[in-house]
Amino acid sequence: MPEHTATSRLRLSGLCFLLQILNILLFAVFVRYSPEGSPGQCPSQLNCSRRNPDSGFQQPRFQDVHIQVLLSFGLLVALLSRYGPGSVAINILIIAFAIQWAVLLQGMFYFVLNGKIYVGAQSIVSADFCTAAVLISTGAVLGRVNPVQMLLLALLEVTVCSLNEYILLSLMGVSDRGRALTVHTFGAYFGLVVSRLLYQPHKDKRKREEQQDMGHQRDVFAVVGTIYLWIFWPNFTSSTTVHGNAENWAVLNTYFSLVASTVATFILCPVLYEESTPRMVQIQDATLAGMAVMGMAGEMLVTPFGALIAGFLHSPQPSTSSSLCSPQPVLHSRLKTQDMCGVHNIHGLPGILGALLGTLLTLLATADTYGDRLELVFPLVAQGSRTVADQALMQLSALPLTLLFAALGGCITGCVLKTKTLRCSPDEQSIENTVFCEVKLGNCWQKAVYGSQ
Amino acid sequence: MPEHTATSRLRLSGLCFLLQILNILLFAVFVRYSPEGSPGQCPSQLNCSRRNPDSGFQQPRFQDVHIQVLLSFGLLVALLSRYGPGSVAINILIIAFAIQWAVLLQGMFYFVLNGKIYVGAQSIVSADFCTAAVLISTGAVLGRVNPVQMLLLALLEVTVCSLNEYILLSLMGVSDRGRALTVHTFGAYFGLVVSRLLYQPHKDKRKREEQQDMGHQRDVFAVVGTIYLWIFWPNFTSSTTVHGNAENWAVLNTYFSLVASTVATFILCPVLYEESTPRMVQIQDATLAGMAVMGMAGEMLVTPFGALIAGFLHSPQPSTSSSLCSPQPVLHSRLKTQDMCGVHNIHGLPGILGALLGTLLTLLATADTYGDRLELVFPLVAQGSRTVADQALMQLSALPLTLLFAALGGCITGCVLKTKTLRCSPDEQSIENTVFCEVKLGNCWQKAVYGSQ
Amino acid sequence: MPEHTATSRLRLSGLCFLLQILNILLFAVFVRYSPEGSPGQCPSQLNCSRRNPDSGFQQPRFQDVHIQVLLSFGLLVALLSRYGPGSVAINILIIAFAIQWAVLLQGMFYFVLNGKIYVGAQSIVSADFCTAAVLISTGAVLGRVNPVQMLLLALLEVTVCSLNEYILLSLMGVSDRGRALTVHTFGAYFGLVVSRLLYQPHKDKRKREEQQDMGHQRDVFAVVGTIYLWIFWPNFTSSTTVHGNAENWAVLNTYFSLVASTVATFILCPVLYEESTPRMVQIQDATLAGMAVMGMAGEMLVTPFGALIAGFLHSPQPSTSSSLCSPQPVLHSRLKTQDMCGVHNIHGLPGILGALLGTLLTLLATADTYGDRLELVFPLVAQGSRTVADQALMQLSALPLTLLFAALGGCITGCVLKTKTLRCSPDEQSIENTVFCEVKLGNCWQKAVYGSQ
Repeated sequence: MPEHTATSRLRLSGLCFLLQILNILLFAVFVRYSPEGSPGQCPSQLNCSRRNPDSGFQQPRFQDVHIQVLLSFGLLVALLSRYGPGSVAINILIIAFAIQWAVLLQGMFYFVLNGKIYVGAQSIVSADFCTAAVLISTGAVLGRVNPVQMLLLALLEVTVCSLNEYILLSLMGVSDRGRALTVHTFGAYFGLVVSRLLYQPHKDKRKREEQQDMGHQRDVFAVVGTIYLWIFWPNFTSSTTVHGNAENWAVLNTYFSLVASTVATFILCPVLYEESTPRMVQIQDATLAGMAVMGMAGEMLVTPFGALIAGFLHSPQPSTSSSLCSPQPVLHSRLKTQDMCGVHNIHGLPGILGALLGTLLTLLATADTYGDRLELVFPLVAQGSRTVADQALMQLSALPLTLLFAALGGCITGCVLKTKTLRCSPDEQSIENTVFCEVKLGNCWQKAVYGSQ
Repeated sequence: MPEHTATSRLRLSGLCFLLQILNILLFAVFVRYSPEGSPGQCPSQLNCSRRNPDSGFQQPRFQDVHIQVLLSFGLLVALLSRYGPGSVAINILIIAFAIQWAVLLQGMFYFVLNGKIYVGAQSIVSADFCTAAVLISTGAVLGRVNPVQMLLLALLEVTVCSLNEYILLSLMGVSDRGRALTVHTFGAYFGLVVSRLLYQPHKDKRKREEQQDMGHQRDVFAVVGTIYLWIFWPNFTSSTTVHGNAENWAVLNTYFSLVASTVATFILCPVLYEESTPRMVQIQDATLAGMAVMGMAGEMLVTPFGALIAGFLHSPQPSTSSSLCSPQPVLHSRLKTQDMCGVHNIHGLPGILGALLGTLLTLLATADTYGDRLELVFPLVAQGSRTVADQALMQLSALPLTLLFAALGGCITGCVLKTKTLRCSPDEQSIENTVFCEVKLGNCWQKAVYGSQ
Repeated sequence: MPEHTATSRLRLSGLCFLLQILNILLFAVFVRYSPEGSPGQCPSQLNCSRRNPDSGFQQPRFQDVHIQVLLSFGLLVALLSRYGPGSVAINILIIAFAIQWAVLLQGMFYFVLNGKIYVGAQSIVSADFCTAAVLISTGAVLGRVNPVQMLLLALLEVTVCSLNEYILLSLMGVSDRGRALTVHTFGAYFGLVVSRLLYQPHKDKRKREEQQDMGHQRDVFAVVGTIYLWIFWPNFTSSTTVHGNAENWAVLNTYFSLVASTVATFILCPVLYEESTPRMVQIQDATLAGMAVMGMAGEMLVTPFGALIAGFLHSPQPSTSSSLCSPQPVLHSRLKTQDMCGVHNIHGLPGILGALLGTLLTLLATADTYGDRLELVFPLVAQGSRTVADQALMQLSALPLTLLFAALGGCITGCVLKTKTLRCSPDEQSIENTVFCEVKLGNCWQKAVYGSQ
């Protein structure tokens, strides 16, 4: 047993070592800072370069570097309310690895020039979006995979995610700057497909019950997570939107959406449950859903009440079914998929609805209502190389494409993770510290959560 | 009993629903984004428009949107140290509702143009100030009102607060950009008057004792709250002050004031109490008071040692009497007013003293010491349409006017909340989750606080 | 006994009072706001004035004011994971005092003009660096000194630190904008020397064991501290680096360094310990070390993989020896020095290595690789008044000079603190609230930590 433990420990250590050496080598060969070091600089393929070529534009970009880690950690904090501090160590490893890997892979697609990848603030912001998708996916499988599996999941998902993003944003010219599709929808369904492939009926039943008991305990983390999301997310959503006039609306729309979504939770909870006020975890879910739905539509909505309505109508999904982190009955019984943190309701569904809303708003876009913003939000339409209907078709077709990529990528990843050599036996000694193994996990969690009290 | 509970639950849900639908309808009819979407744009009535009409001015305004929620949450975190995570759910509902309502009402006063309200980053910052006043008021009555009452309190207070602000800032031309009067003083006395009207002698005695026991438990939240205030508040205070040279001084003055106020707490605590070092809650109070006193005077003080002295002299009030959240003896026994979170000492008194200090500094203002800043801080004086003495008189008369508004508004609100239909019976099931009812509250608190351990 | 306690209480109170009155008097006599109030303004001796004299430069400086407190509190949060909320009250007092004192002393060196010290955002940022050095030093002696001693330590350390900084940055023209030497190295060795002088063999043994037990308990604080450092520190490191193109690289280098350092912790922990994943405290240490090493080299590194390698190689030190806050065996047994929070490994050693790396990179600096940045990073070299080799020699000689200052200052401070009148007897009543006395400290800690549970 101890030998086995030692092997499993060293396997993670060895994998980290190999991947880090690989990263350093690839960085040494390919990655350089942008020649002039200009933060906003990016080559012509990328959206960003089409606008704001003026130099006064540089300062705000520093903000983005500052914000780069916020998204990942916002999600992390949100996860804390479900899984407690025990799961953080591995998540930080995932973030640390995924950001390097995403800088490399996205650099391959976007920032290559003369065989070198030129990185700047922009590349780290992009890399961070990928990391966010990975964190969303891990939310679906958290507690049922070991660290080695999670690292491989990050490795594969970053690859597929970068590819998907490149096709959508650069080749198809889809406008999805809040990343409703490429982060929220992609991450959620990728994770759910992996979860489906790793499904083990008898082992998971026990856990679900314990999970629900934990709901009460995590209120403090949910408070911190909610405050965190309110403060930093609206600004984040707009970090990649156009600077100038349009950015403002993305922030305000996101903000109005989350406000309405929060109130809706207070309306529905007393009706659907025995509780008079929603739990903090439910409010946190409503906040996340209200923001996910504004991912694509954030900079397209031209009236504040639209954002209020969108947020108001979207809240029900998370609060009805995913509340208290219980896997949804239908998903669980019919599709044999476990959704440990309700990512389907918090990220998947709002992402899809946000994409549909974005398509609708694209159809309604006219030069009158948008004014100067048209060129910023839909550059191809403004240049006359594409009609509004064509753009809307592109926006719409991006949805099935993303789902396809998520499903395919999830399948491959799930199959890889199911490989026998990757499963591990329980590692009793380290159990109090981390999300670890499949067997006896019910007990593990109990230790992880109650151990420190 | 269960039926009664169900009714009380559905009442909150129904009220939320009605108010949210009302908000959406009013937004749909009246609210539009500013035509050019310019974040700093605001019509000519408002202070902001008188200065800095240049376009380079836009970027910093995004910061304000970012900061908009910080104040509310800063207060929220401060309240956490008193009431624990249980009270947060309702507070978030209050914030979510009050911001929408304040955008509407303040829009009516400030941003109307051709029958439409044009919102932008500026309107959300203003709305957030109102929300802060509401949160301060709830601090005075927290634990003795149910959520329905709190929602109505928010509804009424936002109305009166917007009116007061409009009269002071726009009609009278008072310079109060850190909102010493319109937020701190107004919020505190509004809450205290409501608290007086809801006074119930025999029920409140028990609670007070338990409150004091809790003091020790909340140290962690007080640590987080204090750090939060140190980081974000100085910047917040200056978010509405003039950009350019003057902003800087408001930040620095606030910062020097809170530093001195903190040291003063360490000086007085050992003298007045048996403790050698102050509790974190006392340090938090000193921080809040040191900031409140700089509300009006922040941008008028022209020497750093003035801020040090002001902060140093203001600290005693909170640390002597309101410490440990015990209602002040005089207020309690004589005036039959309960001040659950010591808002009188933390916000009320420092606000008044800050206003008096501001008046004094206005009298001393000369073109020599202010230089270019005179036009920014006192535009009417700089334009020659008002003498310094007139301006000081305006600043001074704003104080009784604010107190009058707070008293009248508090009276009306208190009478409405006392209506029998609004009082509710204990809701045993939901008690662990929220501040709820009047009866048996002592027990409730114990459950709310110790329940999660 | 009670009398003795009262004396010890009043001694702290009296000292605070004296120092605060002194501060106010000195501020009143010497300190004024910069005449034009321009935030970026600073006299010609200081580095900052040599570059970016344009007015568009002002806005970002407000960010610095905002960030000023972050560093101190970042460290504070990091300390929380070791010592719990009990130690925070005194730390906040130290910060509040040290910032005023540093504004005064650094003003004497840098900002004096016509007998007045002109303060602005720049001076508070500088003052905050000094405060950070003080906090690092207290990390080495925390738990073994009483508040009065800590206040005196702050008084003396700020003095020596300001002198050291003035000599290095202004007189010698050393480029150390991330403060690898003047903050990290100086703070760490100053604290260690003081710790050596206060060494008491038999009393400290007990405590060490209890400290290790606490490791597990503080995971939540370590999570918060790590997230905090990831978010705010990269931006902080660059707050004093040149604005324009060069800043960007400092942020990115710091970020890559901490990512690699985090992964390295995951590689080494399973090899060196029985644990499969590192504890959060170890991850936090790796984060701090990865950042400290980029202090000087941050803006000099011209390739991303260099930062990855530097972070990767530096991580081992903290994770091998200082983990779990146990004093390092060698330091403890041979040198009779206690390093309560492992400041040698987290700040001292990475600071030294960072300085050596900075020297190496200075030697390699050419006009080709730096381009326009050369003038920003090494103004004297760019102006032709100094060769690259001379600059490298200056950078190198700054290291022993800093160590000398730290050793001398630490000796003097240690001797002062050892004075019999400053030692205090146990103060039983206040013990649960703060780090207090030398005797019976083992018990005290147990109360402080477990008391609130």
